[in-house]
Amino acid sequence: MTALQPATSGTTRGASFTAPIAADLAEVERVFARKLAHHRGHVSRLVAHVEHYRGKRLRPTLLLLAARACGSVTLAHHVLGAVVEMIHSATLVHDDVLDDATMRRHVRTVNAAWGNQASILLGDMLFSHAFHLASEVDAKACEIIGRSTNRVCEGELHQVSHRGDLGLSEDDYFDIIDGKTAELTSCCCRLGAMYSGASAETIESLARYGRALGVAFQIADDLLDLVGEERTTGKSLGTDLDQRKLTLPLIRLLDRAGGDVRTHIRQILNSPENHKREALAPYLAETEALSYARRRAEEFAEQARSELACLPPSPCRDILESLTVQVVHRSC
Amino acid sequence: MTALQPATSGTTRGASFTAPIAADLAEVERVFARKLAHHRGHVSRLVAHVEHYRGKRLRPTLLLLAARACGSVTLAHHVLGAVVEMIHSATLVHDDVLDDATMRRHVRTVNAAWGNQASILLGDMLFSHAFHLASEVDAKACEIIGRSTNRVCEGELHQVSHRGDLGLSEDDYFDIIDGKTAELTSCCCRLGAMYSGASAETIESLARYGRALGVAFQIADDLLDLVGEERTTGKSLGTDLDQRKLTLPLIRLLDRAGGDVRTHIRQILNSPENHKREALAPYLAETEALSYARRRAEEFAEQARSELACLPPSPCRDILESLTVQVVHRSC
Repeated sequence: MTALQPATSGTTRGASFTAPIAADLAEVERVFARKLAHHRGHVSRLVAHVEHYRGKRLRPTLLLLAARACGSVTLAHHVLGAVVEMIHSATLVHDDVLDDATMRRHVRTVNAAWGNQASILLGDMLFSHAFHLASEVDAKACEIIGRSTNRVCEGELHQVSHRGDLGLSEDDYFDIIDGKTAELTSCCCRLGAMYSGASAETIESLARYGRALGVAFQIADDLLDLVGEERTTGKSLGTDLDQRKLTLPLIRLLDRAGGDVRTHIRQILNSPENHKREALAPYLAETEALSYARRRAEEFAEQARSELACLPPSPCRDILESLTVQVVHRSC
Repeated sequence: MTALQPATSGTTRGASFTAPIAADLAEVERVFARKLAHHRGHVSRLVAHVEHYRGKRLRPTLLLLAARACGSVTLAHHVLGAVVEMIHSATLVHDDVLDDATMRRHVRTVNAAWGNQASILLGDMLFSHAFHLASEVDAKACEIIGRSTNRVCEGELHQVSHRGDLGLSEDDYFDIIDGKTAELTSCCCRLGAMYSGASAETIESLARYGRALGVAFQIADDLLDLVGEERTTGKSLGTDLDQRKLTLPLIRLLDRAGGDVRTHIRQILNSPENHKREALAPYLAETEALSYARRRAEEFAEQARSELACLPPSPCRDILESLTVQVVHRSC
């Protein structure tokens, strides 16, 4: 169970994380479900399965908290909350194909259960429905969302093109996660602020908050993939290693290791066998690679916090602030 | 070389097929190229490769011909022409992954050259850019395009869910091709007419024209996959058989065959070996299955022609009419 899950855990100053936006989140869920409700047969089974993929609702939560912290929540926010969640679901479905992942949130992935063909098309369909839904708001919303998803896809393509590249730089790593993760969390905060009538300056601050939070979140996610527990996270771990994707702790480890050690670590990473996590554990334990990655995540979280200074005090601002702590201290 | 290719072949009443819209098609190409021009490195190589996928430009051609037949071509048409071509390109890239196809238009497919991961993400990126580009027009355009792509994805999912189903009915077949092909050609004609200020009645006629034309086109495409020549079409053929997708001639063949023959045809279709086209040829030659499929294609082409009655005489109307002949009589 994660601190980001709405119903059961995570409190800030005594209140549930999502209490101030619980009714709005429920409305987002209704819009999401309604958009996909007309499907029948095989398609409806696939759509129903995707429900299990969706746990944290982090993206609509960010959008609604940003909205509430800047002003009031409107119908546009409910629609856009469903849009960003649908886009996120589409990327999860396609990511699981890319990673050959078999488990997510304690259930089989769509590709594991129905094959890659159905997964590719289901992801496409979720993308399409998301864009169609966005058109209910206005052309500006379509523009902002389209621009973000362009960048998300670029980030993912950048990552794929560097698979197996053991010389991946920190700059490349940050460019990749800025695209594949931080772009969408930034977009959520931007949309939330914008459709609450916030000033241009506040909108940009919130967009930077979302971006820095997304980077912190992804570093933490990559740490979990390397040193987390499958039982707790409920998903296949070690997939970055299996897919030969270098993440921050390993980039640091390779960067700081002496010649012989570096050669050995590279051998582990290039090995076809499946116990890379275990083989790397001693090296990670002996060095500051993990703590370096955690420190960088903290820095981005701190940067996110500083962007909130433009907002008046409010329960939702407090929650946005505490989210910066939660995203880097989580076990799933 | 296809009769639908703009530059070198296909004439109607002495004029090139696309002569009246040549400048507009060139502008569509510029919008398309400009939208993807900022990419660098690996992504730009993938984008450049997709150029080879795009031959007929049937979809922007339909959009521009419908526009010109109803009124005049505007900036919106150039943008929307690029949008529909980009969506079509995205579906080709993903279709080649689904079909494990290795050749398209005489070059290697993206999946054959760079793998499935890059193909899935490239397709996603093209979808995303298409929707982003549509937002330059207005929310209504985004709505119409999103509705169409929803239906396209449903059609493809419907097809995947029936893979290997040797009891596929004609109704299912027509529902599948209505989604995966005819929906987008209909959308092109709708957008062309709409942004030329055509009446609601004319817009609906053009949309029905595009739908019937798309169905005729797909039946002809399925016939080519079964009895066409790879040298002429420039793409992998027999993929429907390899992927165990039943198309109209085979549905008819199975439907009309006697018990023993049907059993034998089913054995061929279920066989793991790769000479299904050759094994089926005698059965197709002896029966009316191919001519039945051709007749059905002709019927849809005739239906498309009848929808043009609402248009005043013009060179573009003539071309729309002659396209109904060309789509069913082609060798690639």
